[in-house]
Amino acid sequence: MEFSALLTSVGINIGICVVLFSLYSILRKQPSNITVYFGRKIATKKLKHCETFCLDRFVPSPSWIVKAWETSEEEILALDGLDAVVFLRIIVFSIRVFSIAATICMFLVLPVNYYGQEMTHKMIPSESFDIFCIENVKKNSKWLCVHCIALYIICCSACVLLYFEYSSISRLRLIHITGSQKNPSHFTVLVQSIPWSPEETYSETIRKFFSNYHASSYLSHQMIYRSGTVQKLLSDAEKMYNTMKENSVEMRCQKLKGGCFCAGSTNSFTILPSVNDSVKKELYGNMELVAGEKECSAAFVFFKTRYAALMASSVLQSANPMSWATSLAPEPCDVYWSNLSIPYRQLWIRKIGTLIAATGFMIMFLLPVTVVQSMTQLEKLQQTFPFLRGLLKKKYMSELVTGYLPSVVLILFMYLAPPTMMTLSSLEGPISRSGRKRSACLKVVYFTIWNVFFVNVFAGSAIGTLSAFSSVKDIPAQFGKAVPAQAGFFVTYVLSSGWASLSCEVMQLFSLTWNFFRRWIFRIKIEPFYEPLAFPYHTEVPRILLFGFLGFTCSILAPLITPFVLFYFFLAYLVYKNQILNVYISKYESGGQFWPIAHNTTIFAMVVAQIIALGVFGVKESPVASGFTIPLIVGTLLFHGYCRQRFRPIFRDPAAEVLIEMDRKDEECGRMEEMYQQLRTAYCQFTLLAKRNTSTSGCSSGHDSESNVTELESARPGNPQQVIELWNAPSCHLSEPVLITK
Amino acid sequence: MEFSALLTSVGINIGICVVLFSLYSILRKQPSNITVYFGRKIATKKLKHCETFCLDRFVPSPSWIVKAWETSEEEILALDGLDAVVFLRIIVFSIRVFSIAATICMFLVLPVNYYGQEMTHKMIPSESFDIFCIENVKKNSKWLCVHCIALYIICCSACVLLYFEYSSISRLRLIHITGSQKNPSHFTVLVQSIPWSPEETYSETIRKFFSNYHASSYLSHQMIYRSGTVQKLLSDAEKMYNTMKENSVEMRCQKLKGGCFCAGSTNSFTILPSVNDSVKKELYGNMELVAGEKECSAAFVFFKTRYAALMASSVLQSANPMSWATSLAPEPCDVYWSNLSIPYRQLWIRKIGTLIAATGFMIMFLLPVTVVQSMTQLEKLQQTFPFLRGLLKKKYMSELVTGYLPSVVLILFMYLAPPTMMTLSSLEGPISRSGRKRSACLKVVYFTIWNVFFVNVFAGSAIGTLSAFSSVKDIPAQFGKAVPAQAGFFVTYVLSSGWASLSCEVMQLFSLTWNFFRRWIFRIKIEPFYEPLAFPYHTEVPRILLFGFLGFTCSILAPLITPFVLFYFFLAYLVYKNQILNVYISKYESGGQFWPIAHNTTIFAMVVAQIIALGVFGVKESPVASGFTIPLIVGTLLFHGYCRQRFRPIFRDPAAEVLIEMDRKDEECGRMEEMYQQLRTAYCQFTLLAKRNTSTSGCSSGHDSESNVTELESARPGNPQQVIELWNAPSCHLSEPVLITK
Repeated sequence: MEFSALLTSVGINIGICVVLFSLYSILRKQPSNITVYFGRKIATKKLKHCETFCLDRFVPSPSWIVKAWETSEEEILALDGLDAVVFLRIIVFSIRVFSIAATICMFLVLPVNYYGQEMTHKMIPSESFDIFCIENVKKNSKWLCVHCIALYIICCSACVLLYFEYSSISRLRLIHITGSQKNPSHFTVLVQSIPWSPEETYSETIRKFFSNYHASSYLSHQMIYRSGTVQKLLSDAEKMYNTMKENSVEMRCQKLKGGCFCAGSTNSFTILPSVNDSVKKELYGNMELVAGEKECSAAFVFFKTRYAALMASSVLQSANPMSWATSLAPEPCDVYWSNLSIPYRQLWIRKIGTLIAATGFMIMFLLPVTVVQSMTQLEKLQQTFPFLRGLLKKKYMSELVTGYLPSVVLILFMYLAPPTMMTLSSLEGPISRSGRKRSACLKVVYFTIWNVFFVNVFAGSAIGTLSAFSSVKDIPAQFGKAVPAQAGFFVTYVLSSGWASLSCEVMQLFSLTWNFFRRWIFRIKIEPFYEPLAFPYHTEVPRILLFGFLGFTCSILAPLITPFVLFYFFLAYLVYKNQILNVYISKYESGGQFWPIAHNTTIFAMVVAQIIALGVFGVKESPVASGFTIPLIVGTLLFHGYCRQRFRPIFRDPAAEVLIEMDRKDEECGRMEEMYQQLRTAYCQFTLLAKRNTSTSGCSSGHDSESNVTELESARPGNPQQVIELWNAPSCHLSEPVLITK
Repeated sequence: MEFSALLTSVGINIGICVVLFSLYSILRKQPSNITVYFGRKIATKKLKHCETFCLDRFVPSPSWIVKAWETSEEEILALDGLDAVVFLRIIVFSIRVFSIAATICMFLVLPVNYYGQEMTHKMIPSESFDIFCIENVKKNSKWLCVHCIALYIICCSACVLLYFEYSSISRLRLIHITGSQKNPSHFTVLVQSIPWSPEETYSETIRKFFSNYHASSYLSHQMIYRSGTVQKLLSDAEKMYNTMKENSVEMRCQKLKGGCFCAGSTNSFTILPSVNDSVKKELYGNMELVAGEKECSAAFVFFKTRYAALMASSVLQSANPMSWATSLAPEPCDVYWSNLSIPYRQLWIRKIGTLIAATGFMIMFLLPVTVVQSMTQLEKLQQTFPFLRGLLKKKYMSELVTGYLPSVVLILFMYLAPPTMMTLSSLEGPISRSGRKRSACLKVVYFTIWNVFFVNVFAGSAIGTLSAFSSVKDIPAQFGKAVPAQAGFFVTYVLSSGWASLSCEVMQLFSLTWNFFRRWIFRIKIEPFYEPLAFPYHTEVPRILLFGFLGFTCSILAPLITPFVLFYFFLAYLVYKNQILNVYISKYESGGQFWPIAHNTTIFAMVVAQIIALGVFGVKESPVASGFTIPLIVGTLLFHGYCRQRFRPIFRDPAAEVLIEMDRKDEECGRMEEMYQQLRTAYCQFTLLAKRNTSTSGCSSGHDSESNVTELESARPGNPQQVIELWNAPSCHLSEPVLITK
């Protein structure tokens, strides 16, 4: 690849970004797109807007960037919980590391590479890309020590930053736990595989067991029912109810047309839910009678103190480990109900099954990747598709094809992965929705890094993928040969896939298109369920981590990548902060469980980078540099070992000390009785009721301003007509929706 | 190798066995060897003998075999605890599996191999060994299905037997826990890394912490002291005391010569300990004063109930996982005191260090193994050592060298491994002696299987060891070529190493030689410390498992190995049972923790056998047979996964249910106060006191008849003179020591 091709790619991408971001800043001001770009604000009823038709609406403005930049971490924590903060922390960590890396690489490594061989340099644009890479350094050159020092600086600063981040996120997690005093999940244990006895029901068995062995702390329990006809009836009823509600709202709005402000608590909302409540109570009573026969061998058991629940969950209950399996319950809104009825005995085989399936899917994916890879090599492409020869002769086309097209194809294929992994994770049988998302996230991380990095490296070089790991001794050398050859591809990948993915993210292309079709083509006015999106951590965390991975592995080989990666992270910081503020809502909380994934991936990236460096130094015949790389690998692994010991347990179970203190505080304040009352209704299996109750029992934890997120269920606008009404309200003059501060 | 060479080897080994076993049956009747062959009986004071000089003493007799055969499992359990039973169960399991395997292989596989190719057979002794192996079967032969079926039968029956064994040993473990009502370790938690505060001592910190967070269940605690000068003084004092005691005993015995029975409770014993007790109390008082400054950041914390102790041990205590690390305490006699003062923060790095060291040791070991391997190939040997050429021309010599010598050399080298691994395991920092032994056992298992099997396979074939795992796809094929070529070596290994090791075991060559030198050459009469040996599980379990491994992997390739392996296990059953009855005592108990090691190794052996079979079927071009092998591999792995789920947790921590029931029983009987009293003195760090107290607090658990094992400390005979006296007592007439049944 020539340097000019890279510049073309940079140009195209900057152009696309500017266009898309400007387009976004216009589109978000259009009332018709409010459901696309302000899902969160609609949900939290913090939207107040008018439609004084002004020119401002069609002029791009950077106000959203300013807004995103100014929002502090505390606000994000209060608005969207710990997971969002952790996600932004991953980006901030990357920005910090790659600021250091970019400085080192541009001012130290790049000149060494550029003047690595005695030659007359051409004009920079017509230089080959390889001139800027480590490949340009002579064999046995003393200057390779500079690369080694750069690697040391990058890795050491990354480790220091990682340590402080882990420590600070552990602290946040602790605050998250201690702050959520009203969290019913702390008092609750999920018991699976209750042994069946012919004489009594599961419910009786469980009552006997816990009042026998945990008499002092056992409060009550709640059985889990197999979802069957009752649930279907209930969900049908809910659909009916929602449709009716939407219509009634719309009718009322239509009446008040011209200046109504529907999203507040109008009469239409206050009456309906109360009627509905009584209906539900009746339904629920009947349901218990019907569902009595369909008890599962699983239940939620409530304890009198948090400590007792922790105890019960962390100890083997029965001498037969296959019965009375206990675990701390997830938060009510986080429970993945349909998985709770899976027999416990199936879980291990489901885990093995999904592992095999996920691995299979990863291997099957080799095909499109290999095709993509062949596109970067123009000659190969021309051989495979002779009819393209004419087209590719044009310089412009060839630059486009080599610099841009492969990444686009790859991205399109990559979109298949997250839904597949999510399905596999559901089948695995996790008890919580956050657990499922975390598991999917982990699978997608493996998938992405394997398919983008490793497969490209091996497919691009002469090495076959399977024979790549031919001998442990040779791996560094193989990497040392293959990775620098692919550095150009990774740079274009960051440019195209990275930057473009952010533009797509902010544009919400899918929602936008769907909204457009729904509104202007199909002319559907009633949208029966408007559900704001949950943050797709399982696609975004792996993406962020992938670019971090590419940054680490390529930084000293092709220093030109670092400014692009750094720019990507800056952009990502703004875009995702904006999305968290406006679009996504957090329906459930994993409590910062994504950080260990990010930490481990970063360590892995560093070790891979070091192994590649070892290989490259070997290929370049620099024994000093490769000799000094080995202690760095050992040091990084030891650091990882230390962090596992020091921080990992905090992310598994809460500490006894902390829970006991919380129990005491509650007892002192006399809040316990109130908690026990809440526990009775906290976990409701059937959707209709679950949604009702989350709003009372406070599903989201630790940040009270968040607790009304779920109130969306009781006052769901969603109706586009109504939103337009909102827009039409004359009470404000700004061209953007405004956050009403309480 | 010719079949006659094998027969020579069989002949030599049977001869050696017969000679050594006969010699043993004579030697054990000699009074001078009583300390060598009846260590256990001396220790438990169950020895009663006379020395009416009769010819019987010099005539070999199989009475010990009869005795060993007749002893039931219940007796072994009562005598030597669960670990001994588990060890014998491993042998019994192997006998069962290889009975089936031998039947199948000899009557089904062997004929198929022998008539595998159309050829005129020579006389059987002059046939090549390969005629009996799978190598003799034609390519693409339909008869390979017989091998596949045989593999199915062997693996399935092994799985069924494994399942029942695991289930039955789990039950025994449960009985072991519930049976040991007086076990102080159930009430005790080891707390490590108590945070340091400048204002107060560790002891105060710990009291505050536990009376704050575990007020209802905390009983008391006992600090652990750094072993320093005080301990040295104490141990010197003990040595002095012991020497004095022995002498006084001897003097008294000399006086009573002719008919005394010293091992009972004579006056000389009853007076001394009581004097000594008061001395110790004084010493202990002083010691506490002196050692006050040397407190470690670790302590034993005692709880009021077993359940409370389990709770405290299994939950993360503090929000900082590096402080207040808790674990269930080992039994008092099982505590590895010197490791308790290791700072908790060092443990993870020690673990990594020992892992690296153990791996390094395994790799370093390649050298002797390669040399040994070259010996089986006569030509190679002659090339390397030309001066041997003359010697090796004699047919007899060459048979000896190829059939016998390599194994002997290998065995000698293998003796290095257990002590090395034991040292590494000590450095790893386990808190219990049984934990150390289990860890060493695991290391030796890896070491043995790697060095005996894998290295031999790769060294013997053309494949280099490192390049062996060149590609995952090729592994079965590589194995398929390499293993059958080495089958002959493994058969001779079983013959020589296996059978000979049992003879050596029963002869106790080392003790015998030392005893001989001490008595007849150095003429030392006073033996200051006679300590009966603990069962060396870390050398014997891996040995048993190795032969099981060889049996599984070679059974269908070289069916001739199965009868030899079966015979080995029969012999092992008798020999080890005899040794458990007479020689070894169990000083501490792991509660059957060796079974999971045996289970996992067996599963591993089966999977390796299946992979090899897959490779061989591939090499022999039999797609049907190799196709049918794959589901078998998957099935075996699934079975393993199931067993992990079903049984493994039982071997980690006791179940809450069980401990709560035990607590209740104790409370009903009013035994709790008594237990609390015992707890105060149960754990005594300094050897002198530890030994004293174990006899009162009942170190060994579950089998009361065993509890007086440790009384040996208070009435230690050990003095050879005294033993001769025992022998001289005229009260019995048998030519063998007799077990006095209570």
